Amino acid sequence: MINKELFSTEPDISKVKITDSFWKNRMEIVRTKVLPYEWEALNDRIEGASTSHAVENFKIAAELTKKGLVGKNTKGTTKTVGAEAVDTGDDGFKGFVFQDSDIAKWLEAIAYTLTWHKDSELEKTADEVIDLVCAAQQEDGYLDTFYIINGIEKKWTDLKNNHELYCFGHMLEAAVAYYEATGKDKLLNAMKKYADYIGSIFGPEAEKRHGYPGHEEAELALVKLYNVTKDKKYLDLAKYFIDERGQEPNYFSEECKERGEKIPTYEDLAYHQAHKPVREQDVAIGHAVRAVYLYTAMADVAKLTEDEELMAACERLWNDVTKRQMYITGSIGSSHLGEAFTFDYDLPNDAVYGETCAAIGLAFFAKRMLGISPKREYGDVLEKVLYNGILSGISLDGTRFFYVNPLEVVPYKNHMDARFRHVKTERQKWFGCACCPPNIARIMADLGSYVSSSNKDSFYTHLLIGSESEVEILGVKVSVDVKGNYPWDGDIEVTFNPETPVSFTYGIRIPSWCDNFKASFNGEELPTTMKDGYLILKKEFKKGDVLKLSLDMETKVIEADARVHADHGKVSVMRGPVVYCLEEADNGRDLYLLSMDADADFKVSKETDLGGINALLTSGYREVKEDDDRLYRPAKEIEYKQTNLKFIPYYAWNNRGEGEMTVWVKRRS
Amino acid sequence: MINKELFSTEPDISKVKITDSFWKNRMEIVRTKVLPYEWEALNDRIEGASTSHAVENFKIAAELTKKGLVGKNTKGTTKTVGAEAVDTGDDGFKGFVFQDSDIAKWLEAIAYTLTWHKDSELEKTADEVIDLVCAAQQEDGYLDTFYIINGIEKKWTDLKNNHELYCFGHMLEAAVAYYEATGKDKLLNAMKKYADYIGSIFGPEAEKRHGYPGHEEAELALVKLYNVTKDKKYLDLAKYFIDERGQEPNYFSEECKERGEKIPTYEDLAYHQAHKPVREQDVAIGHAVRAVYLYTAMADVAKLTEDEELMAACERLWNDVTKRQMYITGSIGSSHLGEAFTFDYDLPNDAVYGETCAAIGLAFFAKRMLGISPKREYGDVLEKVLYNGILSGISLDGTRFFYVNPLEVVPYKNHMDARFRHVKTERQKWFGCACCPPNIARIMADLGSYVSSSNKDSFYTHLLIGSESEVEILGVKVSVDVKGNYPWDGDIEVTFNPETPVSFTYGIRIPSWCDNFKASFNGEELPTTMKDGYLILKKEFKKGDVLKLSLDMETKVIEADARVHADHGKVSVMRGPVVYCLEEADNGRDLYLLSMDADADFKVSKETDLGGINALLTSGYREVKEDDDRLYRPAKEIEYKQTNLKFIPYYAWNNRGEGEMTVWVKRRS
Repeated sequence: MINKELFSTEPDISKVKITDSFWKNRMEIVRTKVLPYEWEALNDRIEGASTSHAVENFKIAAELTKKGLVGKNTKGTTKTVGAEAVDTGDDGFKGFVFQDSDIAKWLEAIAYTLTWHKDSELEKTADEVIDLVCAAQQEDGYLDTFYIINGIEKKWTDLKNNHELYCFGHMLEAAVAYYEATGKDKLLNAMKKYADYIGSIFGPEAEKRHGYPGHEEAELALVKLYNVTKDKKYLDLAKYFIDERGQEPNYFSEECKERGEKIPTYEDLAYHQAHKPVREQDVAIGHAVRAVYLYTAMADVAKLTEDEELMAACERLWNDVTKRQMYITGSIGSSHLGEAFTFDYDLPNDAVYGETCAAIGLAFFAKRMLGISPKREYGDVLEKVLYNGILSGISLDGTRFFYVNPLEVVPYKNHMDARFRHVKTERQKWFGCACCPPNIARIMADLGSYVSSSNKDSFYTHLLIGSESEVEILGVKVSVDVKGNYPWDGDIEVTFNPETPVSFTYGIRIPSWCDNFKASFNGEELPTTMKDGYLILKKEFKKGDVLKLSLDMETKVIEADARVHADHGKVSVMRGPVVYCLEEADNGRDLYLLSMDADADFKVSKETDLGGINALLTSGYREVKEDDDRLYRPAKEIEYKQTNLKFIPYYAWNNRGEGEMTVWVKRRS
Repeated sequence: MINKELFSTEPDISKVKITDSFWKNRMEIVRTKVLPYEWEALNDRIEGASTSHAVENFKIAAELTKKGLVGKNTKGTTKTVGAEAVDTGDDGFKGFVFQDSDIAKWLEAIAYTLTWHKDSELEKTADEVIDLVCAAQQEDGYLDTFYIINGIEKKWTDLKNNHELYCFGHMLEAAVAYYEATGKDKLLNAMKKYADYIGSIFGPEAEKRHGYPGHEEAELALVKLYNVTKDKKYLDLAKYFIDERGQEPNYFSEECKERGEKIPTYEDLAYHQAHKPVREQDVAIGHAVRAVYLYTAMADVAKLTEDEELMAACERLWNDVTKRQMYITGSIGSSHLGEAFTFDYDLPNDAVYGETCAAIGLAFFAKRMLGISPKREYGDVLEKVLYNGILSGISLDGTRFFYVNPLEVVPYKNHMDARFRHVKTERQKWFGCACCPPNIARIMADLGSYVSSSNKDSFYTHLLIGSESEVEILGVKVSVDVKGNYPWDGDIEVTFNPETPVSFTYGIRIPSWCDNFKASFNGEELPTTMKDGYLILKKEFKKGDVLKLSLDMETKVIEADARVHADHGKVSVMRGPVVYCLEEADNGRDLYLLSMDADADFKVSKETDLGGINALLTSGYREVKEDDDRLYRPAKEIEYKQTNLKFIPYYAWNNRGEGEMTVWVKRRS
C-alpha cells in the first residue's frame, strides 16, 4: 500500500556538498580526469582506444541540416542495426545507433559537476556542444543523428532496435540537468520541442502510433521533464510508454511485419520487457539495463500518479532483482547473451555480465523506491551497488573502465575460452559501445542527490556519506551535516543546524550489515526507535544538535542462499558495505585452491595503497596440488597448507595489472 | 620410436563372434531396432522427428543424372552453407550439406551387421540403396548430391565448409565395409572411380589443387581403400591430404579469397586443424570430431609409412587429448562454440559438448594407436569411451540419442539458460544434423574389430569383452575365446584352441583401474610378466589351454587432477571401466546439495532394471537447505543429514524420464 506521508523528494544537488573523504576524491577524479578524458574519447582523440565518432556524427548532422540536405542524402543505410556498430563511410553515420547518448550522458555529468564546482571553461565547452546538438535539430523537433544522416524518411520505423527514443531520453536528461545546474534553457527548450513532437507521434489516440522505446529511457526522462515543467502531458506520455509496453497487438511485432521481417520471438520480446504488459510482470527478464531503466520509470510514475497496481509491480520486480537475481556486489545481469537476466538464483561468477550500466540503473531504481518509502532494503541495495558493482567499473585513476564486472577471473581462461571472452581481464580505455564510462561519470557527479531525501516534515539520511545538506522543512532552513569515515569505520556524526528550532522527523538508515549500534543525542544515550530499518528521531531540532551513531563494523563471512549454485560451498567477506575479494597480487595464483573457515578471524589493516583501503587479513588454507600424469585417479586425502589470506575491497581490484581475482572463496568448514 | 615388431592388425570381423552378454544384446538392438529406425528416419517417415531428406536427395540427384539435367538446373544455391541446414525447395537439396554421409554411415553399419548376422532382406535393401547411390554418380566419378542437385559447376570451390571430401570418405568407408562383408563390389568400384577422380584433382603436382578436406574423413577412408586394394596411390593421397593441411599458402584462405570472402581467422583455421602443419601440432584444437578423425588417419599413415615424425605428432596429440582434455567418460569437446576442444584442463560438466561422434572418433584413434603398439593407456581409453561416453549416446531401447553428452544436468537450467541450450536434457528421436545415431550404429556393429589385434606371431586381447576370435598365427588357425561377465565382474577366462600346438605371444590388457589381479594357466598360478600394461604369455599354446584372470573390481572414488577447475572439490565413482552417476530418480532433486566422503564404502546391488546393472549404494550427506528471504547472509554452520546415495552407470542415465544427473559429487572429506 502506498503511504503518501512517506513520499520524499531527492535534494537539489546544488544544496548538497559531498564532504566524504571516500567519495569526494572520486568525484574530483570524475571532474578533473574522467570527463576531460571522455571528451577526448568522444572526439576520437585517444590513441589505442575504440573510436566513438559521437561528436563527428553531430557535426555531420548539423552540416546537413544547415545545408538543407537532410533526406536528400542517399548513401546511408537505415537497416535494423540494433547492437551492431555501423560505418557508412566518410560522410555517413559511424558507431552504434545510440552513439548520440554518449554525448548526452557526458553533458549531463558536466551539468552535475557545475553544481558543486563552477568551471566557466567547462561550461563554455558544454555550451558549444549544446549549440552543436541544437544545430542538428530538425524543424519539427526531431533530433537523432543516425536517421538525420542516413535517411530521415525511415525515422520511427524501427523502435525495437534503433534507439531513437533512448537517445531522446538521454538528451532530455542532460537538458534538464543542465538547466537546473546553469539556468540555461537552450537545450531544455530544444528537447521540449522534441518531446512535443514525439507526443504528436505516439500516444493512445487512434491516429497516433502505439509504440514505445526499444530501450527504455525516454520514460524516466519524461518524468524529469514533468518535474521541471510541471506539464502533465510529459508524465502522461511516460505513463503511456510504460502501459503500452507488451500490450497486444504487440507493437514490435507489428513493426517487424511492416518492415517485412520475421516477427520477434517470445525471447526477443522478453529481451525488451515487451512480452507482456509491465503490470503483469513478476520476474526481471531480458536486457538488464533496459529492465532497470523501465522499473525506475515505473516507480516514478507509480509515485506521481499514486498508482497502487504499478507500485505492486515495482515491488515484485524489486524483490525478484534484489533477492533472487543480484550479485553480492549489486551487479545484475547473469548472461552475456542479451546482456540479460537469466533466472532466479543463476549467478555465475565467471560467466557473469554485471554491466556497469545495469548496476547504475539499479541505483536509479533504488533511489526511486526510497522516494516512495524510506525502507532499509532499498538503501542497502543502493549502498551495496555504489560501493561495489558500480565502483568496480572504473579504475582508481579514472582512466580505465569495466563494462562487464566479473566476480571471478582466471585470465588465461578468459583469453582462451570464447564463452568468457566478454569478460575483460583488465579495465579498458574505452569501448566501441561506450555506454558505461559516461554513465559512471554522471552518477558520481550526481551523488549528492542520492544521500538523502525530504518532505515537508521529514528528512531521511539514506547513505552514511559525509555530506552537508541544506533543505527547507516546514518553512525553516535546516542544514544536516553528516560526518564520518565511512565505509572504513562505523562512527557517524550528524549535526543539525536549523535556522530556528523546528520539529520534524529525522530518519537515518541503519544498514542491515550492522548487528549492533549505539546512538546518542547531544551526548545522551538515545532510546532507539526504529522504523523499516531507519533510526527515527521525531523531535524539535535546534542549532548544534548532534546525533552520534556508532555502528559495529565487524568483518563478516557471508554465504549465499543455497539455491545459488555458483556460490555453493563458498563464502565471501564483507566489512560494512564493502565486498572484498582475493587478488593474485596478494595471494598468488590458483585462487581456486584457497579455502577458509566460515568462522575465520580477521585483522583490519589500514593501507595507503589502492587509494587508501582497509585490507582484511586472515588465515586460510591452500590445497597442495599434486600433479601427476593421471587426469583421473583414486581420490587421496587432500593436503592443505596454512596460508595467509589478504582481502582487498572488490572495487579496487585490477589496479595492479592483470591477475586472478575471486570474490567467493571455498569454504573449508 | 616405432617398433614394427609390435604392429598388429585388427581382426576380420567376420571371424569374430561377440558373445558378451553386455554388448551382444546392444548389437542386436542396433541390428533389429536402431538400423531399421534409422532407415525410417533417413526416409523421413518418423513422426515428430527432425527430417533427414538424405534418401530424397539421392533420388533427386539420380533423377537429374538420368535425365542429363545435372548442371542445367538453375534454382539451387551453392553458397557456403557449412553447418547450416538448407532447403532449396521441392526439387532442391535439403538438409545439411553433409547429409549424404548419413546414408553412408547407415550402409557401413549394415555391412558390419551382415558379417555376424546374415539377413537377405536387409542386404536387398542395402543393394537397392547402393543402386540409388551409384545412379547419382557422374561420368567422371563425382558423387555429392548437394552439388549435383544445386550446381555442379561450383564443385570443389568450398572445401572448407561444404564437406564434399567428407561425404566421399564416408561413402568410401561404406563401400569397403560392404565389399568385405558381402564380396559385392559395385559400390567399391564406384568409390574407387570417385577416388581416382579426386586424385586427378588434388595432389602435390603443380597443375592440381593443393586442397584437403574441410572435415577430415577422406584420409582415413583412403587408408581403408589402400588396405583393401593395396594400391599405394590411395595411401599417397591420404598422406598428401594430411601433410598439405595447414601449409602456407593456406588453402582455405586462398579458397576464401577466390570466392571473394574474408580470409579465415586463425580460430577458424584452428577449428579445421589447418592453422599449421599437422606435424607441428601439439595441442588438440578446434572441432573435436574433425580433430580425432584427422589423428586417426595420421596414426594410420604413420604406421603404414613408418613415419616416426608423424607418429610423434600422434603421441603428442594423444597425450593432450587423453591426459588434459578428456572427460572421465571419455567424452571430448568442452565447448559448443565450434563443437570444440578449448584448452587443457577445461572440462565443464554442465556446459560440456562431448559429442557422441567425437567419442567415437576417439575410439577410432585409440584402435589405431593399439595397432601400432599394444599399450594399456590406449586400451584403457578405448574401454572408457565405449562403456561411457559412446554408450551414453543411445537409449537402452535404441530409439533415442544424445548428440551432446553432459556430465551434469539440472533440467530447468538447460531450459532457461541459452548458454546451456545445446545440452538436451533428454535423448532425442533424431537430429537435423544426424551424424551421431548412424555413427553409434556403425561402431557397435563393428565392435568385433576392436576387441583384439594380431600379427604373425602375437595376439593381443584389448577389450575384456566376451568374444570368439579366429585368427591365423604362424600359419596355424587359432581360436581365442574370451568369457566373462564384464563389466560387472572381473573374472575372465580365455580359452585357446589352436588347430595344432603353436608358440606365440599372447597379451591381454590389465586395465589400469585394477590394482590387483590373479592369473592362472590351466589351473596353475602364473608368474605375471607385464609389458606396457599387458599380461604377456610367450609360450606354446595347445588346444584347450585356459587362462583365468581374476581382476579385483573394487568400487573406486575418483578425483580429477586439481587443474580441472570444474571437478575441484568433487569426486566421482567408478567400478571397473564403468563411470557412475547420481540421478534424480534415485536420489531426489538438488543433487548439488549431496556430498560424500572420499573413503566411502559401497555395496554392489545387482539389479535387473535399466537393462541389468550393478548399482552402487553408499552413505552420503544432504546439506539442509535453509531458505530465508536473504540472498546473502552471515555464514552459518552447515547442517548435513545422512542420506543414502544410489549410483547407476552413467551410460544408463535418462532412461527413466527427465531429471537431474551428476557424475561429479561434492566431496565432504
